[in-house]
Amino acid sequence: MRKIMAFEQVSLDGFFVDAKGDMSWAHKQDAEWTAFTAGNASGNGALLFGRKTYDMMAGFWPSPMAMQAMPEVAEGMNRLTKFVVSRTLESASWRNTTVIKGDLVTSIGEMKKSDGPDLVILGSGSIVSQLSAAGLIDEFQIIVNPLVLGQGRTLFEGVREKLPLKLIKTRAFSNGNVILYYESQAQR
Amino acid sequence: MRKIMAFEQVSLDGFFVDAKGDMSWAHKQDAEWTAFTAGNASGNGALLFGRKTYDMMAGFWPSPMAMQAMPEVAEGMNRLTKFVVSRTLESASWRNTTVIKGDLVTSIGEMKKSDGPDLVILGSGSIVSQLSAAGLIDEFQIIVNPLVLGQGRTLFEGVREKLPLKLIKTRAFSNGNVILYYESQAQR
Repeated sequence: MRKIMAFEQVSLDGFFVDAKGDMSWAHKQDAEWTAFTAGNASGNGALLFGRKTYDMMAGFWPSPMAMQAMPEVAEGMNRLTKFVVSRTLESASWRNTTVIKGDLVTSIGEMKKSDGPDLVILGSGSIVSQLSAAGLIDEFQIIVNPLVLGQGRTLFEGVREKLPLKLIKTRAFSNGNVILYYESQAQR
Repeated sequence: MRKIMAFEQVSLDGFFVDAKGDMSWAHKQDAEWTAFTAGNASGNGALLFGRKTYDMMAGFWPSPMAMQAMPEVAEGMNRLTKFVVSRTLESASWRNTTVIKGDLVTSIGEMKKSDGPDLVILGSGSIVSQLSAAGLIDEFQIIVNPLVLGQGRTLFEGVREKLPLKLIKTRAFSNGNVILYYESQAQR
């Protein structure tokens, strides 16, 4: 049985992208934050993306710019096993990436029951909302950034039932980010 | 010069009320949380409300039920100086309450310059969004509750410019709430 985690950057008003779909406001690098994200990318988990987030990540991490700016994170992102959910993508060019073409909830439900590394979702709001509604996400790791966007999209659009969570731990960073760890309390 | 603080309960997805306008999901009382809220109500600040939040509070805190369930908080809420912003309310029946009838931003801008206790906004999303957009709120005290609502209203509807904040401190509670303290970095 694999666990599924969502690792997500949001604004104080709960948006993971602003009204234009931009998430560049979330990149507040300093030494502590860079070390934290590099530590996350150094593990052996697998990553799960929706199509939009995949395209953005696949366009950035293999680039020389990423290797220069964040070498440790880039090495991890390129090395890790990745899955992208898409009905239209024929194949994925980013190293170690597999396309999931079937029904999202069914496919991920089956992956959870199989052996393999835990799955971490990055960004990919529509994936988070669908899997949250289906009770398939075990842990939410939500990074609250120190700003208000005013408008944007939440990670939980289309979630119709209140989803109770259990707070596990928190950590505040010198760049003003706070990460909140929650276990899902949804009935499955 | 008075400071203006917003003390607000939100869900993890950033909503202060759900799609039906309900905020009863935010009431997770335990000994630690009750002591914290009683401490807040024991000071000498003044409270600022929009009409909807005022009506809800004025209907609850003076009642025998509130005195029995949360005697210390109720005593403080009834004793504190209160302001309600309303164009239509003629007078306010709740003890120590004054009606503010003029333009919100002008009135509060003038109050800030005058002498008197600091002002704390509770709930009152439309007041928070208008005063945030005008750069009149000095500090945000945001309590993130351990649940996802899926739908609702944010505190910052209508805020058109990104509002940068400075994280001051955080505190996690045994009931799963986390309070995040921010100073506004808006230019005034």
